[in-house]
Amino acid sequence: MSAGSLSHTSAIRVEGNVITPVKEILAAEEPLEIRIIYGEPGERIQKSISVTMRTPGNDDELAAGFLFTEGLISSRQDISEIYHEPGKNSNTINIALRAGLAPDIKKTERNFYTTSSCGVCGKASIEAVRTNCVFKPKADFPKIQPEIIWQLPGKLRGEQSVFDQTGGIHACALFSITGELLLLREDVGRHNALDKLIGASLIHNKLPLDNHILLLSGRASFELIQKAAMAGICFIAAVGAPSSLAVEMAEEWELTLVGFLRGNKFNIYCGSERISL
Amino acid sequence: MSAGSLSHTSAIRVEGNVITPVKEILAAEEPLEIRIIYGEPGERIQKSISVTMRTPGNDDELAAGFLFTEGLISSRQDISEIYHEPGKNSNTINIALRAGLAPDIKKTERNFYTTSSCGVCGKASIEAVRTNCVFKPKADFPKIQPEIIWQLPGKLRGEQSVFDQTGGIHACALFSITGELLLLREDVGRHNALDKLIGASLIHNKLPLDNHILLLSGRASFELIQKAAMAGICFIAAVGAPSSLAVEMAEEWELTLVGFLRGNKFNIYCGSERISL
Repeated sequence: MSAGSLSHTSAIRVEGNVITPVKEILAAEEPLEIRIIYGEPGERIQKSISVTMRTPGNDDELAAGFLFTEGLISSRQDISEIYHEPGKNSNTINIALRAGLAPDIKKTERNFYTTSSCGVCGKASIEAVRTNCVFKPKADFPKIQPEIIWQLPGKLRGEQSVFDQTGGIHACALFSITGELLLLREDVGRHNALDKLIGASLIHNKLPLDNHILLLSGRASFELIQKAAMAGICFIAAVGAPSSLAVEMAEEWELTLVGFLRGNKFNIYCGSERISL
Repeated sequence: MSAGSLSHTSAIRVEGNVITPVKEILAAEEPLEIRIIYGEPGERIQKSISVTMRTPGNDDELAAGFLFTEGLISSRQDISEIYHEPGKNSNTINIALRAGLAPDIKKTERNFYTTSSCGVCGKASIEAVRTNCVFKPKADFPKIQPEIIWQLPGKLRGEQSVFDQTGGIHACALFSITGELLLLREDVGRHNALDKLIGASLIHNKLPLDNHILLLSGRASFELIQKAAMAGICFIAAVGAPSSLAVEMAEEWELTLVGFLRGNKFNIYCGSERISL
């Protein structure tokens, strides 16, 4: 992680009756404005589409991953350039899209539901992913041994630099099906950590991630399962608990979802056919 | 918590070589659309301002708290009615504002920065709170004994019904300055839990919360400190780590921020004058 991911501060530590002045390291949090530049040559339009609170570092990946998981772009080829706004601070990033691409900006307004008659419900949120997703879950995914799954959190913690120093950050990691850690990203926002991981994969032309295991350092919310599905991920393990809608999404999308992964224990919520029991 | 806050599912528990089918209870997650109805009598306008993934229950509080912490309303008197959309599912909630109130809808677009020349930075995000906030931190807050602070997490856990059953939810709780638990709210989204707590206080005319202690079950992000400041809260304790911008916001706003509150330990990041050392 870059130095900008960490921030130093003074604090007072109270432990019983002992009071000690200490230097503490915090996970940095700063707003990032994501702008897209699109349209035909000579008629390019710049539009701000999101301001997110994130841990500085890998901003290009975060922006690319956000556009992809929101369904605004569908491949690396849709991006012509990514650059921080010149002459300003580093909290504004521009993504120039290929000429001729007309993104559906409304998608960023998070209209989960499709029509006013249908109303707002989890089912509609799941269906919205179906409309946007360019990948389908892989049919021939191998069976993973429980031993490989048990080892994932330890491997993540071994590499999680900012968490070690701050205790205050989310992480997600991509593993091979043999349990090799391939990519790790951290952020104060759990959705940002996953956008960075997916954005890095997009930038390096590694999508879909359909031959991998995704590990989440905390809980599995709907939003994380949705983003994983967009990237073609079909095997997700979380250290924490899933939400009801996360399980529904994983079931509907025929993903494997493992939760409460601690020590030699885990729960399988769906997709047990990808685990060797 | 209402029954709608919990969801039941089947899972497979793997522990070493032992494989057991189990019934699991999950924290429910469903989208909630928040709509406001405003304008003069006879010319009322309905506008959807947010769709958030939340745990069902206390939707009226969530909606009221969201409007208040976003700066769209400034008191209980700004609300004439709160009701779920009739004839639909319970995932749409309407807040009718008092006649004549013209809310600044742009505030919901989270434009943290004020002008294009200033750029995006944490400082601007902090300043935006100053513009919106109707309360100031209380000058004569008493000194809190460490013993009272140490006991807060245990009291929270004792009352945290959904977490006990699911292990997968955020909580925030309001305590008196003598450590009495007054109000607890839970949600899959940490910002929603705090909006529910502040919304409940708004609805019952309990704002500002300037004679209370707020406890957060997890980490302290900027967004949570911002919402707390909007409600006049000046003493915040978090079980987890704060982010850099959370500390900056708390310092700038002269709040007390305690983090890593576990057992008989905690760190004071700022505002130590409100703690009896």
